[in-house]
Amino acid sequence: MLGGAATYIALSASYFTDVKIVAVVGDDFAQEDRDLLASRRIDLAGLEHVPGKTFFWAGVYSPDMNDRTTLRTDLNVFADFQPKLPSSYLTAPYLLLGNIQPALQRGVRSQMNGVRLTGGDTMNYWIKDYRDELLATIREWDFLLINDSEARMLSGEYNLRRAAQKVIDMGPHTLVIKRGEYGAILFHRDCHFIAPGYLLEDVFDPTGAGDCFAGGFIGYLAGQGIQPRDRSIDLAELRKAVIYGSVMGSFCCERFGVDRFRDLTRGEIDRRYQEFKTCTEF
Amino acid sequence: MLGGAATYIALSASYFTDVKIVAVVGDDFAQEDRDLLASRRIDLAGLEHVPGKTFFWAGVYSPDMNDRTTLRTDLNVFADFQPKLPSSYLTAPYLLLGNIQPALQRGVRSQMNGVRLTGGDTMNYWIKDYRDELLATIREWDFLLINDSEARMLSGEYNLRRAAQKVIDMGPHTLVIKRGEYGAILFHRDCHFIAPGYLLEDVFDPTGAGDCFAGGFIGYLAGQGIQPRDRSIDLAELRKAVIYGSVMGSFCCERFGVDRFRDLTRGEIDRRYQEFKTCTEF
Repeated sequence: MLGGAATYIALSASYFTDVKIVAVVGDDFAQEDRDLLASRRIDLAGLEHVPGKTFFWAGVYSPDMNDRTTLRTDLNVFADFQPKLPSSYLTAPYLLLGNIQPALQRGVRSQMNGVRLTGGDTMNYWIKDYRDELLATIREWDFLLINDSEARMLSGEYNLRRAAQKVIDMGPHTLVIKRGEYGAILFHRDCHFIAPGYLLEDVFDPTGAGDCFAGGFIGYLAGQGIQPRDRSIDLAELRKAVIYGSVMGSFCCERFGVDRFRDLTRGEIDRRYQEFKTCTEF
Repeated sequence: MLGGAATYIALSASYFTDVKIVAVVGDDFAQEDRDLLASRRIDLAGLEHVPGKTFFWAGVYSPDMNDRTTLRTDLNVFADFQPKLPSSYLTAPYLLLGNIQPALQRGVRSQMNGVRLTGGDTMNYWIKDYRDELLATIREWDFLLINDSEARMLSGEYNLRRAAQKVIDMGPHTLVIKRGEYGAILFHRDCHFIAPGYLLEDVFDPTGAGDCFAGGFIGYLAGQGIQPRDRSIDLAELRKAVIYGSVMGSFCCERFGVDRFRDLTRGEIDRRYQEFKTCTEF
Protein backbone atom coordinates (compact mmCIF):
# COMPACT_ATOMS: atom_id res chain seq x y z
CA MET A 1 0.00 0.00 0.00
CA LEU A 2 1.00 3.69 -0.24
CA GLY A 3 3.66 4.68 2.29
CA GLY A 4 7.05 6.33 2.63
CA ALA A 5 8.39 9.38 4.44
CA ALA A 6 7.57 11.86 1.65
CA THR A 7 3.97 10.64 1.55
CA TYR A 8 3.35 10.91 5.31
CA ILE A 9 5.19 14.22 5.68
CA ALA A 10 3.36 15.79 2.77
CA LEU A 11 -0.10 14.56 3.80
CA SER A 12 0.44 15.79 7.33
CA ALA A 13 1.92 19.19 6.38
CA SER A 14 -0.79 19.79 3.79
CA TYR A 15 -3.27 20.63 6.57
CA PHE A 16 -1.19 23.72 7.39
CA THR A 17 0.47 24.92 4.18
CA ASP A 18 1.10 24.23 0.48
CA VAL A 19 3.47 21.32 -0.06
CA LYS A 20 5.75 20.32 -2.94
CA ILE A 21 7.13 16.79 -3.03
CA VAL A 22 10.44 15.62 -4.46
CA ALA A 23 10.60 11.83 -4.63
CA VAL A 24 10.85 8.92 -7.03
CA VAL A 25 8.38 6.15 -7.88
CA GLY A 26 8.31 3.31 -10.35
CA ASP A 27 5.81 2.53 -13.09
CA ASP A 28 3.76 0.48 -10.59
CA PHE A 29 2.76 3.60 -8.63
CA ALA A 30 -1.04 3.62 -8.50
CA GLN A 31 -3.18 6.38 -9.93
CA GLU A 32 -5.37 6.33 -6.81
CA ASP A 33 -2.28 7.09 -4.70
CA ARG A 34 -1.43 10.07 -6.92
CA ASP A 35 -5.06 11.10 -6.61
CA LEU A 36 -4.95 11.03 -2.80
CA LEU A 37 -1.90 13.32 -2.74
CA ALA A 38 -3.40 15.59 -5.41
CA SER A 39 -6.66 15.78 -3.45
CA ARG A 40 -4.71 17.45 -0.64
CA ARG A 41 -3.31 19.93 -3.21
CA ILE A 42 0.22 18.52 -2.88
CA ASP A 43 2.41 19.64 -5.81
CA LEU A 44 3.71 16.54 -7.61
CA ALA A 45 5.93 18.29 -10.18
CA GLY A 46 8.96 16.86 -8.38
CA LEU A 47 7.59 13.31 -8.23
CA GLU A 48 9.88 11.54 -10.68
CA HIS A 49 8.57 8.48 -12.53
CA VAL A 50 11.15 5.97 -13.76
CA PRO A 51 10.89 2.46 -15.18
CA GLY A 52 10.95 -0.24 -12.52
CA LYS A 53 9.29 -0.85 -9.19
CA THR A 54 8.62 1.62 -6.36
CA PHE A 55 10.52 1.28 -3.07
CA PHE A 56 8.87 -1.41 -0.89
CA TRP A 57 9.03 -2.06 2.84
CA ALA A 58 7.26 -4.65 5.00
CA GLY A 59 7.56 -5.28 8.72
CA VAL A 60 5.84 -6.67 11.80
CA TYR A 61 5.26 -4.88 15.09
CA SER A 62 5.64 -6.28 18.60
CA PRO A 63 2.35 -6.73 20.51
CA ASP A 64 2.93 -3.45 22.41
CA MET A 65 3.65 -1.66 19.07
CA ASN A 66 6.91 -0.23 20.45
CA ASP A 67 9.29 -2.37 18.36
CA ARG A 68 9.19 -3.45 14.79
CA THR A 69 11.07 -6.00 12.75
CA THR A 70 11.70 -5.39 9.06
CA LEU A 71 10.63 -8.32 6.91
CA ARG A 72 11.64 -6.84 3.57
CA THR A 73 13.22 -3.70 2.13
CA ASP A 74 13.39 -3.48 -1.67
CA LEU A 75 15.10 -0.24 -2.71
CA ASN A 76 14.01 -0.72 -6.36
CA VAL A 77 13.99 2.64 -8.20
CA PHE A 78 15.00 4.39 -4.97
CA ALA A 79 18.52 2.86 -5.26
CA ASP A 80 19.59 5.29 -8.00
CA PHE A 81 17.57 8.29 -6.83
CA GLN A 82 19.26 11.67 -7.40
CA PRO A 83 16.73 14.30 -6.29
CA LYS A 84 16.36 17.09 -8.89
CA LEU A 85 14.19 20.05 -7.95
CA PRO A 86 11.82 21.52 -10.56
CA SER A 87 12.52 25.22 -11.08
CA SER A 88 9.17 26.04 -9.45
CA TYR A 89 10.53 24.56 -6.16
CA LEU A 90 13.77 26.54 -5.93
CA THR A 91 12.47 29.54 -4.05
CA ALA A 92 10.30 27.66 -1.54
CA PRO A 93 10.98 29.11 1.94
CA TYR A 94 10.75 25.91 4.01
CA LEU A 95 12.61 22.67 3.40
CA LEU A 96 12.11 19.37 5.20
CA LEU A 97 14.58 16.61 4.30
CA GLY A 98 13.25 13.11 4.90
CA ASN A 99 15.46 10.26 6.06
CA ILE A 100 17.79 9.44 3.15
CA GLN A 101 21.55 9.40 2.50
CA PRO A 102 22.96 12.64 4.00
CA ALA A 103 24.82 13.60 0.79
CA LEU A 104 21.50 13.57 -1.09
CA GLN A 105 19.87 15.71 1.63
CA ARG A 106 22.77 18.15 1.26
CA GLY A 107 22.43 18.15 -2.51
CA VAL A 108 18.75 19.13 -2.26
CA ARG A 109 19.47 21.99 0.09
CA SER A 110 22.24 23.32 -2.20
CA GLN A 111 19.72 23.59 -5.06
CA MET A 112 17.45 25.90 -3.04
CA ASN A 113 17.70 29.69 -3.27
CA GLY A 114 17.14 31.62 -0.07
CA VAL A 115 15.44 28.95 2.04
CA ARG A 116 14.38 30.38 5.42
CA LEU A 117 14.25 27.25 7.51
CA THR A 118 15.81 23.84 6.81
CA GLY A 119 15.58 20.71 8.86
CA GLY A 120 15.13 17.01 8.64
CA ASP A 121 15.36 13.51 9.89
CA THR A 122 18.06 10.84 9.87
CA MET A 123 18.53 7.32 11.27
CA ASN A 124 20.95 4.93 13.00
CA TYR A 125 22.41 3.66 9.70
CA TRP A 126 23.65 7.13 8.62
CA ILE A 127 24.75 8.02 12.15
CA LYS A 128 26.87 4.91 12.38
CA ASP A 129 28.31 4.42 8.90
CA TYR A 130 28.11 7.91 7.28
CA ARG A 131 28.96 10.04 10.29
CA ASP A 132 31.22 12.63 8.59
CA GLU A 133 28.81 13.07 5.70
CA LEU A 134 25.92 13.42 8.18
CA LEU A 135 27.76 15.97 10.34
CA ALA A 136 28.59 18.08 7.27
CA THR A 137 24.91 17.92 6.30
CA ILE A 138 23.20 18.81 9.60
CA ARG A 139 25.72 21.63 10.22
CA GLU A 140 23.64 23.64 7.73
CA TRP A 141 20.26 22.79 9.25
CA ASP A 142 18.09 24.86 11.55
CA PHE A 143 16.40 21.87 13.14
CA LEU A 144 16.84 18.16 13.52
CA LEU A 145 14.03 15.71 14.35
CA ILE A 146 15.24 12.36 15.65
CA ASN A 147 14.18 9.79 18.22
CA ASP A 148 15.78 9.25 21.60
CA SER A 149 17.97 6.30 20.62
CA GLU A 150 19.25 8.23 17.59
CA ALA A 151 20.03 11.27 19.77
CA ARG A 152 21.98 9.02 22.12
CA MET A 153 23.88 7.39 19.26
CA LEU A 154 24.67 10.70 17.55
CA SER A 155 25.88 12.41 20.74
CA GLY A 156 27.40 9.49 22.61
CA GLU A 157 25.48 10.65 25.71
CA TYR A 158 22.74 8.60 27.36
CA ASN A 159 21.21 11.51 29.29
CA LEU A 160 18.91 13.39 26.91
CA ARG A 161 19.67 16.82 28.33
CA ARG A 162 23.37 16.35 27.76
CA ALA A 163 22.77 14.59 24.42
CA ALA A 164 20.73 17.58 23.25
CA GLN A 165 23.49 20.04 24.13
CA LYS A 166 26.01 18.06 22.08
CA VAL A 167 23.68 17.78 19.08
CA ILE A 168 22.97 21.52 19.17
CA ASP A 169 26.73 22.12 19.16
CA MET A 170 26.81 20.20 15.84
CA GLY A 171 24.81 22.90 14.08
CA PRO A 172 21.01 22.84 14.37
CA HIS A 173 19.75 25.48 16.81
CA THR A 174 16.56 23.50 17.34
CA LEU A 175 16.32 19.83 18.22
CA VAL A 176 13.22 17.71 18.67
CA ILE A 177 13.76 14.34 20.30
CA LYS A 178 10.83 12.01 19.67
CA ARG A 179 10.01 9.38 22.30
CA GLY A 180 7.29 7.33 20.59
CA GLU A 181 4.22 6.90 22.80
CA TYR A 182 5.83 9.12 25.46
CA GLY A 183 5.79 12.24 23.29
CA ALA A 184 8.64 14.56 22.36
CA ILE A 185 11.07 17.06 23.83
CA LEU A 186 12.03 20.30 22.11
CA PHE A 187 15.41 21.88 22.80
CA HIS A 188 16.08 25.44 21.65
CA ARG A 189 18.77 27.68 23.10
CA ASP A 190 18.82 27.08 26.86
CA CYS A 191 15.16 26.05 27.03
CA HIS A 192 13.33 22.82 26.63
CA PHE A 193 9.67 21.93 26.24
CA ILE A 194 8.23 18.51 27.02
CA ALA A 195 5.14 17.37 25.14
CA PRO A 196 3.37 14.17 26.20
CA GLY A 197 2.22 11.53 23.77
CA TYR A 198 -1.51 11.54 23.09
CA LEU A 199 -3.23 8.77 25.02
CA LEU A 200 -4.90 6.81 22.23
CA GLU A 201 -7.53 4.22 23.07
CA ASP A 202 -6.30 2.11 20.14
CA VAL A 203 -2.94 2.19 18.40
CA PHE A 204 -3.81 0.56 15.14
CA ASP A 205 -0.62 1.14 13.10
CA PRO A 206 2.26 3.40 14.17
CA THR A 207 3.92 3.29 10.72
CA GLY A 208 4.57 6.85 9.56
CA ALA A 209 3.79 8.51 12.91
CA GLY A 210 7.27 10.06 13.15
CA ASP A 211 6.98 11.43 9.62
CA CYS A 212 3.51 12.80 10.36
CA PHE A 213 5.02 14.49 13.42
CA ALA A 214 7.63 16.10 11.16
CA GLY A 215 4.95 17.17 8.68
CA GLY A 216 2.83 18.79 11.39
CA PHE A 217 5.88 20.49 12.90
CA ILE A 218 7.24 22.08 9.69
CA GLY A 219 3.74 22.54 8.28
CA TYR A 220 2.66 24.64 11.24
CA LEU A 221 5.84 26.76 11.20
CA ALA A 222 5.52 27.30 7.43
CA GLY A 223 1.85 28.20 7.76
CA GLN A 224 2.81 30.84 10.34
CA GLY A 225 5.56 32.24 8.07
CA ILE A 226 8.17 31.71 10.80
CA GLN A 227 11.60 33.18 10.11
CA PRO A 228 14.52 32.56 12.46
CA ARG A 229 16.48 35.65 13.51
CA ASP A 230 20.02 35.18 14.84
CA ARG A 231 19.44 31.41 14.93
CA SER A 232 16.44 31.95 17.21
CA ILE A 233 12.72 31.23 16.74
CA ASP A 234 9.85 32.39 18.93
CA LEU A 235 9.66 29.64 21.53
CA ALA A 236 5.86 29.85 21.78
CA GLU A 237 5.58 29.03 18.08
CA LEU A 238 8.04 26.15 18.37
CA ARG A 239 5.99 24.71 21.24
CA LYS A 240 2.81 24.89 19.21
CA ALA A 241 4.61 23.23 16.30
CA VAL A 242 5.61 20.34 18.56
CA ILE A 243 2.01 19.90 19.71
CA TYR A 244 0.70 20.00 16.13
CA GLY A 245 3.36 17.43 15.26
CA SER A 246 2.14 15.22 18.12
CA VAL A 247 -1.47 15.66 17.05
CA MET A 248 -0.67 14.57 13.49
CA GLY A 249 1.38 11.59 14.72
CA SER A 250 -1.51 10.48 16.92
CA PHE A 251 -4.04 10.60 14.08
CA CYS A 252 -1.68 8.60 11.88
CA CYS A 253 -1.76 5.67 14.35
CA GLU A 254 -5.54 5.42 14.35
CA ARG A 255 -5.85 3.54 11.07
CA PHE A 256 -3.75 1.40 8.77
CA GLY A 257 -1.17 3.19 6.60
CA VAL A 258 -2.34 6.58 5.33
CA ASP A 259 -6.03 5.74 5.71
CA ARG A 260 -6.67 8.30 8.45
CA PHE A 261 -5.79 11.09 6.01
CA ARG A 262 -8.57 10.13 3.64
CA ASP A 263 -11.14 11.92 5.81
CA LEU A 264 -9.22 13.83 8.51
CA THR A 265 -10.31 17.48 8.80
CA ARG A 266 -8.58 20.58 10.11
CA GLY A 267 -11.40 20.85 12.67
CA GLU A 268 -10.49 17.47 14.14
CA ILE A 269 -6.84 18.56 14.30
CA ASP A 270 -7.66 21.73 16.20
CA ARG A 271 -9.96 19.87 18.61
CA ARG A 272 -7.18 17.43 19.42
CA TYR A 273 -4.76 20.34 19.88
CA GLN A 274 -7.19 21.69 22.51
CA GLU A 275 -7.36 18.23 24.11
CA PHE A 276 -3.57 18.33 24.50
CA LYS A 277 -3.95 21.63 26.34
CA THR A 278 -6.69 20.27 28.58
CA CYS A 279 -4.79 17.18 29.57
CA THR A 280 -1.49 18.95 30.35
CA GLU A 281 -2.54 22.25 32.00
CA PHE A 282 -2.12 22.71 35.72
CA MET B 1 21.65 2.69 54.70
CA LEU B 2 18.26 4.13 55.65
CA GLY B 3 15.53 3.27 53.13
CA GLY B 4 12.06 1.78 52.82
CA ALA B 5 8.70 3.04 51.61
CA ALA B 6 7.63 4.57 54.95
CA THR B 7 10.87 6.53 55.14
CA TYR B 8 10.67 7.99 51.64
CA ILE B 9 6.94 8.70 51.81
CA ALA B 10 7.24 10.42 55.19
CA LEU B 11 10.29 12.51 54.27
CA SER B 12 8.63 13.64 51.07
CA ALA B 13 5.20 14.39 52.58
CA SER B 14 6.76 16.25 55.52
CA TYR B 15 7.42 19.26 53.26
CA PHE B 16 3.67 19.76 52.94
CA THR B 17 2.02 18.52 56.15
CA ASP B 18 2.53 16.81 59.51
CA VAL B 19 3.28 13.11 59.14
CA LYS B 20 2.87 10.11 61.47
CA ILE B 21 4.67 6.89 60.62
CA VAL B 22 3.59 3.33 61.40
CA ALA B 23 6.38 0.86 60.70
CA VAL B 24 8.69 -1.66 62.36
CA VAL B 25 12.47 -1.63 62.81
CA GLY B 26 14.94 -3.88 64.58
CA ASP B 27 17.44 -3.07 67.30
CA ASP B 28 20.03 -2.20 64.63
CA PHE B 29 18.10 0.89 63.56
CA ALA B 30 20.53 3.81 63.82
CA GLN B 31 19.96 6.82 66.05
CA GLU B 32 21.06 9.12 63.25
CA ASP B 33 18.28 7.72 61.05
CA ARG B 34 15.71 8.39 63.79
CA ASP B 35 17.22 11.86 64.08
CA LEU B 36 16.80 12.58 60.37
CA LEU B 37 13.10 11.68 60.51
CA ALA B 38 12.61 13.63 63.75
CA SER B 39 14.36 16.65 62.24
CA ARG B 40 11.53 16.80 59.69
CA ARG B 41 9.01 16.70 62.60
CA ILE B 42 7.78 13.24 61.59
CA ASP B 43 5.85 11.61 64.44
CA LEU B 44 7.55 8.31 65.36
CA ALA B 45 5.07 7.14 68.00
CA GLY B 46 4.02 4.35 65.63
CA LEU B 47 7.57 3.26 64.85
CA GLU B 48 7.71 -0.10 66.57
CA HIS B 49 11.06 -1.39 67.82
CA VAL B 50 11.47 -5.15 68.17
CA PRO B 51 14.46 -7.41 68.79
CA GLY B 52 16.18 -8.53 65.59
CA LYS B 53 17.35 -6.90 62.40
CA THR B 54 15.59 -4.27 60.31
CA PHE B 55 14.29 -5.18 56.84
CA PHE B 56 17.13 -5.11 54.31
CA TRP B 57 17.13 -4.80 50.54
CA ALA B 58 20.00 -4.57 48.05
CA GLY B 59 19.89 -4.36 44.27
CA VAL B 60 21.71 -3.21 41.16
CA TYR B 61 20.38 -0.95 38.43
CA SER B 62 20.84 -1.33 34.67
CA PRO B 63 23.11 1.31 33.08
CA ASP B 64 20.06 3.32 31.91
CA MET B 65 18.57 3.11 35.45
CA ASN B 66 15.24 1.84 34.10
CA ASP B 67 15.55 -1.73 35.39
CA ARG B 68 16.82 -3.14 38.62
CA THR B 69 17.75 -6.58 39.84
CA THR B 70 17.27 -7.49 43.48
CA LEU B 71 20.41 -8.95 45.03
CA ARG B 72 19.00 -9.53 48.48
CA THR B 73 15.75 -9.15 50.42
CA ASP B 74 15.89 -9.98 54.14
CA LEU B 75 12.45 -9.52 55.69
CA ASN B 76 13.90 -9.79 59.23
CA VAL B 77 11.55 -8.14 61.79
CA PHE B 78 9.23 -7.13 58.94
CA ALA B 79 8.17 -10.78 58.52
CA ASP B 80 5.92 -10.70 61.59
CA PHE B 81 4.82 -7.08 61.34
CA GLN B 82 1.24 -6.43 62.45
CA PRO B 83 0.73 -2.66 62.22
CA LYS B 84 -0.85 -1.23 65.40
CA LEU B 85 -1.82 2.42 65.36
CA PRO B 86 -1.11 4.55 68.47
CA SER B 87 -4.33 6.16 69.71
CA SER B 88 -2.96 9.56 68.67
CA TYR B 89 -3.08 8.35 65.05
CA LEU B 90 -6.68 7.16 64.90
CA THR B 91 -8.32 10.41 63.88
CA ALA B 92 -5.77 11.47 61.25
CA PRO B 93 -7.68 12.61 58.16
CA TYR B 94 -5.34 11.28 55.44
CA LEU B 95 -4.00 7.76 55.12
CA LEU B 96 -1.36 6.51 52.70
CA LEU B 97 -0.76 2.76 52.71
CA GLY B 98 2.69 1.74 51.48
CA ASN B 99 3.30 -1.40 49.50
CA ILE B 100 2.72 -4.33 51.88
CA GLN B 101 0.43 -7.36 52.12
CA PRO B 102 -3.10 -6.12 51.23
CA ALA B 103 -4.68 -7.64 54.38
CA LEU B 104 -2.33 -5.57 56.53
CA GLN B 105 -3.18 -2.43 54.55
CA ARG B 106 -6.85 -3.21 55.15
CA GLY B 107 -6.24 -3.78 58.83
CA VAL B 108 -4.65 -0.34 59.18
CA ARG B 109 -7.52 1.38 57.48
CA SER B 110 -10.06 -0.40 59.67
CA GLN B 111 -8.37 1.03 62.79
CA MET B 112 -8.86 4.62 61.58
CA ASN B 113 -11.89 6.71 62.61
CA GLY B 114 -13.30 9.04 59.99
CA VAL B 115 -10.43 9.14 57.54
CA ARG B 116 -11.18 11.59 54.69
CA LEU B 117 -8.95 10.21 51.99
CA THR B 118 -7.29 6.80 51.74
CA GLY B 119 -4.97 5.51 49.09
CA GLY B 120 -1.85 3.54 48.52
CA ASP B 121 0.51 1.49 46.52
CA THR B 122 0.81 -2.20 45.66
CA MET B 123 3.03 -4.39 43.47
CA ASN B 124 3.10 -7.30 41.01
CA TYR B 125 3.49 -9.90 43.77
CA TRP B 126 0.17 -8.98 45.47
CA ILE B 127 -1.57 -8.49 42.12
CA LYS B 128 -0.60 -11.96 40.97
CA ASP B 129 -0.80 -14.11 44.10
CA TYR B 130 -3.15 -12.19 46.45
CA ARG B 131 -5.62 -10.86 43.93
CA ASP B 132 -8.87 -11.36 45.90
CA GLU B 133 -7.34 -9.91 49.06
CA LEU B 134 -6.01 -6.96 47.05
CA LEU B 135 -9.36 -6.32 45.34
CA ALA B 136 -11.17 -6.34 48.70
CA THR B 137 -8.59 -3.85 49.99
CA ILE B 138 -8.52 -1.29 47.18
CA ARG B 139 -12.32 -1.34 46.92
CA GLU B 140 -12.26 0.91 50.00
CA TRP B 141 -9.61 3.31 48.69
CA ASP B 142 -10.02 6.74 47.15
CA PHE B 143 -6.85 6.55 45.12
CA LEU B 144 -4.35 4.01 43.87
CA LEU B 145 -0.78 4.85 42.82
CA ILE B 146 0.85 2.16 40.68
CA ASN B 147 3.21 1.96 37.76
CA ASP B 148 2.25 1.17 34.17
CA SER B 149 3.17 -2.51 34.24
CA GLU B 150 1.20 -2.98 37.48
CA ALA B 151 -1.82 -1.23 35.96
CA ARG B 152 -1.61 -3.57 32.98
CA MET B 153 -1.31 -6.64 35.19
CA LEU B 154 -4.14 -5.58 37.50
CA SER B 155 -6.55 -4.75 34.67
CA GLY B 156 -5.51 -7.29 32.04
CA GLU B 157 -5.47 -4.43 29.50
CA TYR B 158 -2.32 -3.23 27.72
CA ASN B 159 -3.76 0.14 26.66
CA LEU B 160 -3.47 2.50 29.63
CA ARG B 161 -6.70 4.34 28.93
CA ARG B 162 -8.66 1.11 28.98
CA ALA B 163 -6.59 -0.24 31.90
CA ALA B 164 -7.44 2.87 33.91
CA GLN B 165 -11.16 2.48 33.31
CA LYS B 166 -11.05 -1.10 34.59
CA VAL B 167 -9.04 -0.17 37.68
CA ILE B 168 -11.44 2.68 38.51
CA ASP B 169 -14.30 0.18 38.25
CA MET B 170 -12.55 -1.78 41.03
CA GLY B 171 -13.12 1.00 43.55
CA PRO B 172 -10.66 3.90 43.65
CA HIS B 173 -12.14 7.02 42.02
CA THR B 174 -8.63 8.35 41.39
CA LEU B 175 -5.78 6.49 39.74
CA VAL B 176 -2.22 7.64 39.17
CA ILE B 177 -0.18 5.52 36.78
CA LYS B 178 3.53 6.18 37.18
CA ARG B 179 5.79 5.78 34.14
CA GLY B 180 9.26 6.22 35.62
CA GLU B 181 11.34 8.76 33.71
CA TYR B 182 8.34 9.47 31.45
CA GLY B 183 6.22 10.95 34.25
CA ALA B 184 2.73 10.00 35.37
CA ILE B 185 -0.89 10.01 34.25
CA LEU B 186 -3.78 10.89 36.54
CA PHE B 187 -7.22 9.45 35.86
CA HIS B 188 -10.25 10.85 37.69
CA ARG B 189 -13.83 10.53 36.50
CA ASP B 190 -13.79 10.95 32.71
CA CYS B 191 -10.67 13.13 32.71
CA HIS B 192 -7.00 12.46 32.57
CA PHE B 193 -3.94 14.58 33.13
CA ILE B 194 -0.50 13.76 31.77
CA ALA B 195 2.56 14.99 33.68
CA PRO B 196 6.00 14.61 32.11
CA GLY B 197 9.00 13.32 33.99
CA TYR B 198 11.46 16.01 35.05
CA LEU B 199 14.47 16.03 32.74
CA LEU B 200 17.32 15.50 35.19
CA GLU B 201 20.89 16.10 34.07
CA ASP B 202 21.98 13.22 36.31
CA VAL B 203 19.95 10.32 37.66
CA PHE B 204 22.08 9.25 40.55
CA ASP B 205 19.81 6.75 42.33
CA PRO B 206 16.12 6.18 41.49
CA THR B 207 15.51 4.10 44.65
CA GLY B 208 12.53 5.54 46.49
CA ALA B 209 11.44 7.88 43.68
CA GLY B 210 7.99 6.24 43.44
CA ASP B 211 7.50 6.52 47.20
CA CYS B 212 8.60 10.16 47.14
CA PHE B 213 6.04 10.71 44.40
CA ALA B 214 3.37 9.22 46.68
CA GLY B 215 4.55 11.37 49.61
CA GLY B 216 4.40 14.57 47.56
CA PHE B 217 0.98 13.63 46.16
CA ILE B 218 -0.75 12.87 49.46
CA GLY B 219 1.29 15.50 51.31
CA TYR B 220 0.09 18.25 49.01
CA LEU B 221 -3.56 17.12 49.19
CA ALA B 222 -3.37 16.86 52.98
CA GLY B 223 -1.73 20.28 53.25
CA GLN B 224 -4.63 21.73 51.24
CA GLY B 225 -7.20 19.97 53.44
CA ILE B 226 -8.78 18.29 50.41
CA GLN B 227 -12.02 16.45 51.04
CA PRO B 228 -13.69 14.37 48.33
CA ARG B 229 -17.41 15.02 47.80
CA ASP B 230 -19.44 12.35 46.02
CA ARG B 231 -16.25 10.49 45.17
CA SER B 232 -14.94 13.60 43.40
CA ILE B 233 -11.96 15.85 44.07
CA ASP B 234 -11.22 19.25 42.52
CA LEU B 235 -9.27 18.28 39.42
CA ALA B 236 -7.03 21.35 39.61
CA GLU B 237 -5.83 20.23 43.06
CA LEU B 238 -5.27 16.67 41.88
CA ARG B 239 -3.16 17.97 38.98
CA LYS B 240 -1.04 20.05 41.32
CA ALA B 241 -0.63 17.03 43.60
CA VAL B 242 0.69 14.99 40.66
CA ILE B 243 3.21 17.71 39.82
CA TYR B 244 4.36 17.99 43.44
CA GLY B 245 4.70 14.20 43.44
CA SER B 246 6.83 14.40 40.31
CA VAL B 247 8.94 17.16 41.82
CA MET B 248 9.63 15.10 44.94
CA GLY B 249 10.44 12.00 42.89
CA SER B 250 12.91 14.00 40.80
CA PHE B 251 14.74 15.35 43.85
CA CYS B 252 14.97 11.85 45.29
CA CYS B 253 16.98 10.66 42.24
CA GLU B 254 19.60 13.39 42.57
CA ARG B 255 21.56 11.74 45.37
CA PHE B 256 22.08 8.33 46.90
CA GLY B 257 19.31 6.98 49.15
CA VAL B 258 17.62 9.67 51.25
CA ASP B 259 20.58 12.05 51.07
CA ARG B 260 18.78 14.71 49.05
CA PHE B 261 16.35 15.20 51.94
CA ARG B 262 19.12 16.20 54.33
CA ASP B 263 19.19 19.73 52.87
CA LEU B 264 16.23 20.04 50.49
CA THR B 265 14.13 23.16 51.13
CA ARG B 266 10.52 24.05 50.36
CA GLY B 267 11.88 26.92 48.26
CA GLU B 268 13.69 24.47 45.96
CA ILE B 269 10.51 22.41 45.69
CA ASP B 270 8.43 25.40 44.65
CA ARG B 271 11.06 26.53 42.13
CA ARG B 272 11.03 23.11 40.50
CA TYR B 273 7.22 23.16 40.45
CA GLN B 274 7.50 26.41 38.46
CA GLU B 275 10.06 24.77 36.16
CA PHE B 276 7.50 22.03 35.41
CA LYS B 277 5.06 24.77 34.40
CA THR B 278 7.63 26.51 32.21
CA CYS B 279 8.64 23.38 30.35
CA THR B 280 5.09 22.15 29.65
CA GLU B 281 3.10 25.32 28.89
CA PHE B 282 2.07 26.11 25.33
